[in-house]
Amino acid sequence: ELVRLLNARERFCTASSCDGRVIVTDTDGTGIQKKNCTWLLVTHDPCVKSDVMTALEKATGDVVFKFEPFVLHVLCRELQDARLLHSVAIDSGFRNSGITVGRGGKITMAVRSTHCLEVPLSHKGRLMVSEEYIEFLVHVANQKMEENLRRIDRFHKGLELALEAAVPADTLFPEAPEKSHSVYVHRRKRRTAQEQANPSRELEPQDDTESSLDLFDEIMI
Amino acid sequence: ELVRLLNARERFCTASSCDGRVIVTDTDGTGIQKKNCTWLLVTHDPCVKSDVMTALEKATGDVVFKFEPFVLHVLCRELQDARLLHSVAIDSGFRNSGITVGRGGKITMAVRSTHCLEVPLSHKGRLMVSEEYIEFLVHVANQKMEENLRRIDRFHKGLELALEAAVPADTLFPEAPEKSHSVYVHRRKRRTAQEQANPSRELEPQDDTESSLDLFDEIMI
Repeated sequence: ELVRLLNARERFCTASSCDGRVIVTDTDGTGIQKKNCTWLLVTHDPCVKSDVMTALEKATGDVVFKFEPFVLHVLCRELQDARLLHSVAIDSGFRNSGITVGRGGKITMAVRSTHCLEVPLSHKGRLMVSEEYIEFLVHVANQKMEENLRRIDRFHKGLELALEAAVPADTLFPEAPEKSHSVYVHRRKRRTAQEQANPSRELEPQDDTESSLDLFDEIMI
Repeated sequence: ELVRLLNARERFCTASSCDGRVIVTDTDGTGIQKKNCTWLLVTHDPCVKSDVMTALEKATGDVVFKFEPFVLHVLCRELQDARLLHSVAIDSGFRNSGITVGRGGKITMAVRSTHCLEVPLSHKGRLMVSEEYIEFLVHVANQKMEENLRRIDRFHKGLELALEAAVPADTLFPEAPEKSHSVYVHRRKRRTAQEQANPSRELEPQDDTESSLDLFDEIMI
């Protein structure tokens, strides 16, 4: 629904997304290189211990259990559009979000979280943890999945508000000249339109739950 | 040295950085909330098992072992400057890097890696893993630390090349008018200067080692 909300706007186009998932991978144990990596388990729903145990039976190398939170990439028409999304993402708790400007000028906004798990479980085919630990780990992962869903929901609601508030420049200036012919005039008009019609800047940043662990947050808004 | 390299340029100013570290934290076990979090261990050097064991003796809640890779935040004068840094960061393996444009127009480039560890070790004061597992974990963390240093080195070298190549617009156009009076003219001149003098666009992206685990990388360049 979030993806539909964005794609309904001309100025946004979602490129890829993942709601959040638990994955269990098996690698050949050469350390950092993720070559020869096999996926033993992928689930976007709450995880159960027996699935992890079954996955582990197939393992021959170094198995890693991961929780990967929500990721969303959105192509944006203008930098201002990406800033709006970025602001809502940060306010919703997605603190590693950022904007990418490609070589051809393509603007992408990436919604990312700091909220992960990455746990080595076995080495050279030998399980290094107890079944009880795996049960505990599954519980922690499911808690993170729940928190992840709460953040997605916050982002979704924040985005609805912000998009409603941000009257697009095209609506205000239907007679605006083609960008390629008069970039400067078009830009100035857009900026004025945004200033008048974009109260999303006034959203209060929410107090994020992870602040005590990250020294760098204050500059990310 | 990397920080000095950037700060020697007028168009860059580093805001915060961490080379990479291992941390062991103790929380009150309420799950996601990182309130009442105690740091039991922080090291920027290779980790040793005995330090982790000593740290664990002080634990009363839920202990988590983390490897956090290199992070660097750089304030950039213009978007083009941030794009240059971003391009070098991605080519060096820092694939979660991104640009942030603040409410006041402040442009920050964040260098971030996907390369982490986050492992719950104890629950309500009770250790959930063996000493042998902690030894293994320390080994994995140290491997990641080494790879992290290789990436920092790659980033440093790539940055030296890119900065040498990118002759700043101010040097080419010392007579350029003040930005606030004539943004448009200044911008057009800058763009021309960049086109002539910025061969960093021609850097070959390196084949990153984590590609098989991330579906979203192709759009991050």
